Amino acid sequence: MFTQPIPTIKRDGNTAVILDQTLLPHRCEVRRLTTLDEVATAIHAMQVRGAPLIGATAAFGVAIALVADASDAQLEHALTALAATRPTAVNLHWALGRMAGRLRPLAPADRLDAAWREAEAIRRNDAEMCAAIGRHGYAILERLATGLDRPLRVMTHCNAGWLATCGAGTALAPVYEAQARGLPVEVWVSETRPRNQGLLTAWELREARVPLRLIADNAAGILIARGDVDVVITGADRVAANGDAANKVGTYLKALAAREHGVPFYIAAPFSTVDFACADGAAIPIEDRGAGEVCTVLGLADDGAVRSLRLAPESTAAANPAFDVTPARCISGIITERGICEPARLRDLYPEAQA
Amino acid sequence: MFTQPIPTIKRDGNTAVILDQTLLPHRCEVRRLTTLDEVATAIHAMQVRGAPLIGATAAFGVAIALVADASDAQLEHALTALAATRPTAVNLHWALGRMAGRLRPLAPADRLDAAWREAEAIRRNDAEMCAAIGRHGYAILERLATGLDRPLRVMTHCNAGWLATCGAGTALAPVYEAQARGLPVEVWVSETRPRNQGLLTAWELREARVPLRLIADNAAGILIARGDVDVVITGADRVAANGDAANKVGTYLKALAAREHGVPFYIAAPFSTVDFACADGAAIPIEDRGAGEVCTVLGLADDGAVRSLRLAPESTAAANPAFDVTPARCISGIITERGICEPARLRDLYPEAQA
Repeated sequence: MFTQPIPTIKRDGNTAVILDQTLLPHRCEVRRLTTLDEVATAIHAMQVRGAPLIGATAAFGVAIALVADASDAQLEHALTALAATRPTAVNLHWALGRMAGRLRPLAPADRLDAAWREAEAIRRNDAEMCAAIGRHGYAILERLATGLDRPLRVMTHCNAGWLATCGAGTALAPVYEAQARGLPVEVWVSETRPRNQGLLTAWELREARVPLRLIADNAAGILIARGDVDVVITGADRVAANGDAANKVGTYLKALAAREHGVPFYIAAPFSTVDFACADGAAIPIEDRGAGEVCTVLGLADDGAVRSLRLAPESTAAANPAFDVTPARCISGIITERGICEPARLRDLYPEAQA
Repeated sequence: MFTQPIPTIKRDGNTAVILDQTLLPHRCEVRRLTTLDEVATAIHAMQVRGAPLIGATAAFGVAIALVADASDAQLEHALTALAATRPTAVNLHWALGRMAGRLRPLAPADRLDAAWREAEAIRRNDAEMCAAIGRHGYAILERLATGLDRPLRVMTHCNAGWLATCGAGTALAPVYEAQARGLPVEVWVSETRPRNQGLLTAWELREARVPLRLIADNAAGILIARGDVDVVITGADRVAANGDAANKVGTYLKALAAREHGVPFYIAAPFSTVDFACADGAAIPIEDRGAGEVCTVLGLADDGAVRSLRLAPESTAAANPAFDVTPARCISGIITERGICEPARLRDLYPEAQA
C-alpha cells in the first residue's frame, strides 16, 4: 500500500502533528496541535484541507479536546466547534458523527482512550479507502491507455492526492497506482485559484516523480478541445444522493468542457463523502470564503520567505464561492472504494446507507 | 463620446507615450517609446495589450521606426519586426497592412508625416468604433434589464475596456454607455490568470464608478448556474469568417457555462478584429507564452513596491496557451461597430470584405 512520504496527520501522545499545507510548496513544515482551538483553526485556515483529511483531523480534534476534560459538555462543545469549521465537506460531519456515536455512550473516564482509538481507526480506514479507489480507478486508466503510443494524459483540479487524505489520495490514487504498475501517465495540474491548491498537487506529484504540467485554470477548455486530455478525475467534498458532486470551485467548468468534447469525467470519492441526506446538489451548502483570498496571493519572495502580495486594492469588492456543483449528467462515473458506478447508481453500491 | 481618463497611447513629437499596463492596478505610470525596439518590446511584454490597442501601437511604431530612416528597407524591417510581436491578435496585422498600403507607394521623404497621420487616423477610428459598439451593445443591455428590479449583472473576461483600445473599449463600451445613460449595471470581473488582466478591468471600472465584483476565474460556473449573471460580454483577438472567436484563455469555459444555463454570450469586436481569411477557429494561431507567467505573479508588496512572487519552483513544467477559441455555436451574437449579428452572418455586415 502507498506510504505517505510525510504523514498528513499523526498522533503523538496527546497531540496531533500535521503537515502545514499553507506553506507548501515553498516550506515543508509540521505543526503540533495541542488544543481544540488549534485544531479548529488548522481546519478553517486550511493548514489541513481535502475532504477526507478534514474528517480525520476533526476526529483527532475530538480526542485532543477530551485530554483535560472528557465530560459530556466538553464532548458536545468539541463536536459543535469542529462541525462549524468548514460547511461543505461532509466527511467532517461523517467523522464527527462516528466519534459521537462511539463516545457518547461511554463514561467520561473511558472516553479519551476510545477517542484516540476511534480517530486512529478513521485514519487507517481512510488510507484503505484510498488504496481501493486507486485500484478501481486504475482499471479506467488502463483501459483508456490501451493502444496509446504516448503517456495517458490525466487532468485534475485542486488537490485530491495524498495531501488531501490519510493515504494515497482520491483523484490521484489511480495515478499513483498507474505509476506503481508502470503505466505511463502525465498529469495536467490546474493552479486552482484563489488558494492555488494545484501547487500542492504539483509538489506531491513531483515528489512521487509523476510527470506533470501546471496550467492556469483558464487553460482547461483549450486543452480539452485540442485533444490533449484523455480523462479528467477530481475529488469531491460532498456527493448528493443523485450523484451531483460539490468540489472545489472550477470543477464544473472542466466537467462542461469534458462533456462537450467527449472526454470522460470522473469523481473519486469514498463513502464518507457521499451524503444520502442531500437529495441533489441544490441541497449542498456552498462555503463563501473571504474576499481577501481573491485579492491576495501567497508565494515565495526573493529573500526566500513565504509572503503575500496584494493583487487588488484591499477595498476591491470580491466574491469567493469556494465550491461548485457538477451535476450528475456531466459525470461519467464515481470511483469509490467499492468500485465504479454511474452517478445515479450510488445507492446500489451502498445499500446499507439510510435514505 | 467617452474620453479616456489617461490616453492609452498618444503621439508626442516623434515619440509615443503609453500607459504602462504591467504596473497597473498598483502604479499608474506612463512610458515614452522612442525606438522601434521599444515599441516591439512594449507590445510583446504587454505594456500595451488588448487587440485594438496593439494595432494602434504597431501603427505608431511604424512612424517611430521611420524617424531617422524612411527607406524602403527600414519600412519593411519595421513592418516585419512589429508583426512578430504577438501572433493571435489580427488587429496587429490589419493596422500594419493599412500602414504598408499607405506608405509603400510614397517616396521616403514623404513617409514620416504620412505615417504619423495614418497612425493618428487608426487611433481616431478605433475610438469611433468603440463608441459605435457601445451604442449597439447598449441596446442589448437595455432589453435584458427590462423589468429587473436590481442592476443588470454583466460578466466579462480579461480586459476589453478603455485600457484595451484607443476609446471606450469593446466589451465594456456597452457598460460605459449604460453608465452614461443611467441604466444600473454591475460587472463580474474575472481575475484572468495567468496575467491577471481582470485587475485592469477592476481598476478601470472603479475609476469610472461602475460597481464590480472581482472573482477567481473558477467561479464563473457556479455564478452562472446560480442565476447571478444576466449576460456575458467579452472582446476578441481574432474572429474567423464563420464567427468562431479567439479571445483570452478562459473565455471558452465561460461561453460553455453560459450556453448550458441559457445566459446570452456576446463577443464585442470591431471590423479590424475579423479575419475573413481564417475560415474557422482552427485556422487561428494560438500564442503559447512562457511557463514563467503561470509560475509567478506580480503584485504589491508590503513595502509598496510592485514585486513578483514565485508560486511554483522555477523548474516546474507548465503550459501556457494565451488564448482559446469559442466556437460560433456558443456565441449569441457579435457586437460590431455596424450593429449586432449572428456569428454566421458576419459577411452580411461587411460586404466589402475580401473572401
